[in-house]
Amino acid sequence: MNAPEKITATTATPADALRFLAADAVEKAKSGHPGAPMGMADIADVLWRGHLRHNPADPKWLNRDRFVLSNGHGSMLLYSLLHLTGYDLRMEELAQFRQMHSRTPGHPEVEVTPGVETTTGPLGQGLSNAVGMALAEKMLAASFNRPGHVVIDHHTYVFVGDGCMMEGISHEVSSLAGTLGLSKLICFYDDNGISIDGNVAGWFADDTPKRFAAYGWNVIAAVDGHDVDALDLAIRQAKSQNSQPTLICCKTVIGKGAPTKAGGHDVHGAPLGAIEIAAMRAQKGWTAGPFEVPSDIAKAWDARTTGAARQAEWNELFSAYQAEHPALAGELLRRMGGTLPANLTEVFSQLVHADGDLQKKVATRKASQIVLEHISATLPEFFGGSADLTGSNLTNVKASVWVNHHGSGNYLSYGVREFGMAAMMNGMALYGGFIPFGGTFMTFSDYSRNAIRMAALMKQRVIHVLTHDSIGLGEDGPTHQPIEHAASLRLIPNNRLWRPCDGVETAIAWQAAISRTDGPTCLILSRQALTPFSRSTTQISDAAKGGYVLSETLSGLSTPQVVLIATGSEVEIAAAAAVQLSNAGIAVRVVSMPCVEAFYAQDAMYRKHVLPDGIPRVSIEAGVTWFWRAIVGESGSAMGIDTFGESAPAEQLYAHFKLTPEHMVERALAVIKES
Amino acid sequence: MNAPEKITATTATPADALRFLAADAVEKAKSGHPGAPMGMADIADVLWRGHLRHNPADPKWLNRDRFVLSNGHGSMLLYSLLHLTGYDLRMEELAQFRQMHSRTPGHPEVEVTPGVETTTGPLGQGLSNAVGMALAEKMLAASFNRPGHVVIDHHTYVFVGDGCMMEGISHEVSSLAGTLGLSKLICFYDDNGISIDGNVAGWFADDTPKRFAAYGWNVIAAVDGHDVDALDLAIRQAKSQNSQPTLICCKTVIGKGAPTKAGGHDVHGAPLGAIEIAAMRAQKGWTAGPFEVPSDIAKAWDARTTGAARQAEWNELFSAYQAEHPALAGELLRRMGGTLPANLTEVFSQLVHADGDLQKKVATRKASQIVLEHISATLPEFFGGSADLTGSNLTNVKASVWVNHHGSGNYLSYGVREFGMAAMMNGMALYGGFIPFGGTFMTFSDYSRNAIRMAALMKQRVIHVLTHDSIGLGEDGPTHQPIEHAASLRLIPNNRLWRPCDGVETAIAWQAAISRTDGPTCLILSRQALTPFSRSTTQISDAAKGGYVLSETLSGLSTPQVVLIATGSEVEIAAAAAVQLSNAGIAVRVVSMPCVEAFYAQDAMYRKHVLPDGIPRVSIEAGVTWFWRAIVGESGSAMGIDTFGESAPAEQLYAHFKLTPEHMVERALAVIKES
Repeated sequence: MNAPEKITATTATPADALRFLAADAVEKAKSGHPGAPMGMADIADVLWRGHLRHNPADPKWLNRDRFVLSNGHGSMLLYSLLHLTGYDLRMEELAQFRQMHSRTPGHPEVEVTPGVETTTGPLGQGLSNAVGMALAEKMLAASFNRPGHVVIDHHTYVFVGDGCMMEGISHEVSSLAGTLGLSKLICFYDDNGISIDGNVAGWFADDTPKRFAAYGWNVIAAVDGHDVDALDLAIRQAKSQNSQPTLICCKTVIGKGAPTKAGGHDVHGAPLGAIEIAAMRAQKGWTAGPFEVPSDIAKAWDARTTGAARQAEWNELFSAYQAEHPALAGELLRRMGGTLPANLTEVFSQLVHADGDLQKKVATRKASQIVLEHISATLPEFFGGSADLTGSNLTNVKASVWVNHHGSGNYLSYGVREFGMAAMMNGMALYGGFIPFGGTFMTFSDYSRNAIRMAALMKQRVIHVLTHDSIGLGEDGPTHQPIEHAASLRLIPNNRLWRPCDGVETAIAWQAAISRTDGPTCLILSRQALTPFSRSTTQISDAAKGGYVLSETLSGLSTPQVVLIATGSEVEIAAAAAVQLSNAGIAVRVVSMPCVEAFYAQDAMYRKHVLPDGIPRVSIEAGVTWFWRAIVGESGSAMGIDTFGESAPAEQLYAHFKLTPEHMVERALAVIKES
Repeated sequence: MNAPEKITATTATPADALRFLAADAVEKAKSGHPGAPMGMADIADVLWRGHLRHNPADPKWLNRDRFVLSNGHGSMLLYSLLHLTGYDLRMEELAQFRQMHSRTPGHPEVEVTPGVETTTGPLGQGLSNAVGMALAEKMLAASFNRPGHVVIDHHTYVFVGDGCMMEGISHEVSSLAGTLGLSKLICFYDDNGISIDGNVAGWFADDTPKRFAAYGWNVIAAVDGHDVDALDLAIRQAKSQNSQPTLICCKTVIGKGAPTKAGGHDVHGAPLGAIEIAAMRAQKGWTAGPFEVPSDIAKAWDARTTGAARQAEWNELFSAYQAEHPALAGELLRRMGGTLPANLTEVFSQLVHADGDLQKKVATRKASQIVLEHISATLPEFFGGSADLTGSNLTNVKASVWVNHHGSGNYLSYGVREFGMAAMMNGMALYGGFIPFGGTFMTFSDYSRNAIRMAALMKQRVIHVLTHDSIGLGEDGPTHQPIEHAASLRLIPNNRLWRPCDGVETAIAWQAAISRTDGPTCLILSRQALTPFSRSTTQISDAAKGGYVLSETLSGLSTPQVVLIATGSEVEIAAAAAVQLSNAGIAVRVVSMPCVEAFYAQDAMYRKHVLPDGIPRVSIEAGVTWFWRAIVGESGSAMGIDTFGESAPAEQLYAHFKLTPEHMVERALAVIKES
């Protein structure tokens, strides 16, 4: 591949098309960020016209290079690139930048705009997604390529700004990328010395090349980000790597091309203004109007022919692979398509109905491991890991193989990097071919929270195994005891949280998480052993609905006098309370509600069947009660914990916080009396 | 100061007392972490016996060195040090390690145990607190020391493990500590090569000395963490620094002293077992039983005499300072005591009652800046900042002076480091003398969430200025639009969230935040301008209660037919709906509820006065509705947004999500009809 062709007709270059489109779109929208697109235009030019292997006609081509704009506020750069190279993104759509239901929203959103690989904006996470993608590529290549059939072989390119570099998550994932030797990851650092508060020298004085060298990266320092030859050389050097990821440090001028505003922080996140843009037009000899591109420059950008040719070449390669390795090729396509193996349902069915280890008294974290042991062999796309708590989260199985430098393996110790893990898992899910799951202590979901949110926003199948889910963890104390976490995670739109009460519910939760194709799931698991319940076939199938009648003692009545609702480790407390109430002649129903969101997604008939109107309710969950008030209503009572926890053995904590069958009986009698 | 005295009676050293206390306490508790205390025992020995300036009799001595155990799971190390040096922590309390209501909980907790400076456990945050403390020391010294009167002059020491080093937050705060030249920060890195998943080489291959050199730290690499002379030399070198923070990289053996388990990951977080401990006793010639220390070793540790002498010296110094600079000394003591200036109440009173800029139509972020302009001069302990969004958060004022290398200033651009900022603010609040406030976009409170939680747990006065609080931010789209955030932050125990609806409520919110001495406050502010309301004196005083009647139209009735409840930018929608309802002859009350937690902390009489029983309620907040169901009840209706946002101009988004007066009227009529 050659460096981009020079356009000599005017002083304007193809990169200037990116500058004008960004400036004009931001101007029209009266909001947005022209600085980064204009500053990185030359880098984008060299990369996209000279190196990027992609086919605008097929944004989902399996072996395309991945491109991530981690500094997502520079979205107009990406939209311009997609439009100019020939993706299905018309100029009219660029003119709708930041408007309702346009395909050019304020920050790039995957599945909204063809060619956008991930949703970016929250800084540092795009880089982390890219690390996940590069890892996915390496592992998929190791699993599926065969001698003479290198069907997975591409780069992951990522643009990052100062903001990404300052964010802590950049440390987590860059350190791991270096350790893992992700040599096909190539990162362009837009070192423009400016962030929103001004010149970064006052708050960001890192020697970034040295920092990344410390991570084991190949660092190409001090490249002039406006020198196309230097950039081209740097990319060639980076692509020649086979053991280290590459950081290309590009010295750039923010807002490059703006006659008076370039290099200042005013250009970062506000329109340039009509006068500045007119001056830029004059200076560049750019006679085209807003949302127009001179035909020679448009032609220089058009990547449709080369893109189609490249994919055609690859299609031939893949056909040969298919011919020689039909099973492998089929499996690769199945995995990339996200379809589950046909026999998985049967494996789960066996698990929940058989009388095995899951039906014993075990912690749900242990039950989770038992489930993993049973299903892992059936599910090669399963990719496990933990943020340095493998032995506590029990996310590993006997067949776990830790990822090595060659990309073999199905398990990663992410290190103590909760946020990085979550954002890398998002990248792997976006890439396809993997169902990533990762563990940490539930309290530390706080660290990864925004990445869980991003998975929900991007509708990605990512599974968080959050163990040690309450005061039940005991002596580690309030820093480690989740109180508000279950409720808070349930409030994230499109997130699903399961808090199973025993082994069977744990299997049901795992099945729901794996089967869910449009969003993440948090599995909330106990440290302590929990009493198993026996269930009818109907109960097992109803449990998948998120809430169901676990037991009922009617003492001759046709309806219960009180409904006890519980999740996870508190279900056995509710069940014990029900026995006491029943012994006292009270008709009582116990509802287990492992997934509140799933239950409230059921139709009203089912919900009323489980929670009949007019019967008082008492809920119990070892966490904040406010969430449950919506379920128990004014006539009901919510038992839980509204302060921080304490450091002590678990059973003492349950007594201390009055989460006992005896207290539940009291509450139940009180609500019955008042009803 | 000299290197620690060598004890020659047996092969045991004073450091071994730390090892046995940790091993025995974990053994007795049947849980805990012996590995780090045993591995870092020699470092602790050299630091605490040879260098640390503290007085066990007065853990609050103003000029003490600060010591932070960032790897908080090694809590027994700290408890042992406090006991041995003579703090009010008896041996019986060490024997109650991890038991209910003991002063030796699983992780160190400030205010629970004398001498514990901060609550640690969530990794990386202790280091960040320490950076905040070192910054506080530097700034306080710059403000209060005078020639010949160096009353603030001490070091901040912090122990960190591999876990802290892997966490992203370590990057954020270490980068900033280097930039700020916090030369009195001395960090000991426990480089034992082991984390919970095993040998870190597989997931953490950083060249940490190089990484910290890239941050501009003074790095002392490859110190043998069991060589007391080498450690002493390193500390001396570190203390001689005057421009850079120091990282002392200590090569240690985890669980050092355990005859068979040292160096392995089994020793990290589980009891050693009776056999191993017995073997250790035999090997060391340690005849003392559990929770006994040989008298010569106990004597070698006792720091009470030297501590008292040091504080006495300082007291003399301070007396001379007081004599020469009585006002300064008084102000220093006031600030360190956390008492607010006497005239602050008056300033706030003027602000809310006068007819000034606050009473105009402004965004609440702008109102917040107006408040800051008015109160900053009165409140020198106020320390502002933003995670690189100063111009958006409007956290700066005309009198803001950016912190410089000499420690002067009252404002810090923290860079794009939300989590680091929050945890540093916790450190500053713990240190005393400052009321830190810091801004970011509300969505990115996700990044800092666990530090907000830690402030709540530690009861620290830290103020988070979270602007761009809803879809009202418009075009930046769903990645930037908070949906679940207000509700989620309210669920953190002991956190307070204010979402004011106009300038006056913004001032009231600031006053509440500043006056609150036992926990953090989140101020949730709009990007967009909001309509101001006029209020009676009673309404202004009731607003401080978190919820109050803003307006009422009774149309001849004595009670309203419906109560509209709103917060922040949606109050003007409710008010407009009330006008329409009133025009239609409906008796309607509008309740503004800027702080739900404060409102529900009022007595039942006040609450029922504002929200009378039996009258249907409609709430509106541009976020998840689940939270509000607890307030509106089954008969009411909660208006909000239960999906992610969209990228578009704000007013279009409000219409799209049906958050308009017209829709509120519809809902109100519906609940009246059903009631």
